[in-house]
Amino acid sequence: MATLSVRIDLEPRGRIGPGKIRLLEKLEELGSISAAGRAMGMSYRRAWLLVDELNGVFGQPVVSTRMGGASGGGAALTPFGSELVRTYRAIEEKAQEASRSHLTALQTAMGRRRR
Amino acid sequence: MATLSVRIDLEPRGRIGPGKIRLLEKLEELGSISAAGRAMGMSYRRAWLLVDELNGVFGQPVVSTRMGGASGGGAALTPFGSELVRTYRAIEEKAQEASRSHLTALQTAMGRRRR
Repeated sequence: MATLSVRIDLEPRGRIGPGKIRLLEKLEELGSISAAGRAMGMSYRRAWLLVDELNGVFGQPVVSTRMGGASGGGAALTPFGSELVRTYRAIEEKAQEASRSHLTALQTAMGRRRR
Repeated sequence: MATLSVRIDLEPRGRIGPGKIRLLEKLEELGSISAAGRAMGMSYRRAWLLVDELNGVFGQPVVSTRMGGASGGGAALTPFGSELVRTYRAIEEKAQEASRSHLTALQTAMGRRRR
């Protein structure tokens, strides 16, 4: 079936889409920025820049990091970061539900014309 | 306010997002692929490839072209191309409406934390 993803543009600037949200989810799951980046095929630098961008957009961290220690440090979502991921996924779900009939029409048109 | 754009992934392959739809709208408005591309800051080649990709995805043209003549040829949406643009915009509108309260919450969170 046709699936929908959403990109949100915030004022005055800031863009949130499936890539950044997936990175945050991976980060929560794996406990580090580099592991999350690796899981998505991106460099540590790229992953770090995306997290830094999100922190800047909202004027408060979405990710917190700990240095060193026996476990070699790590990263986790802040409560605000978790809230952001939940809100994004809720928007996506609402959007998909609301447009289900149109998406079906599109996918059907495609099937029909390919036969 | 926060605005939402949607990307639609169709099976078995094919992706439609705001860029391709805007290109089709510009093409309808300006009557040529090159003018539409120019209006969006892309080369003729890039614009042509996007149109060609869309034609391939649906197995029938979304754009028809005329060669030469006094007006130097031109391009227009096919009825199916127009239907595609309308359906995409309808999906976008439904998605935006359905998620309005979440989008407002996100934009408000941003404003609050920036103060």
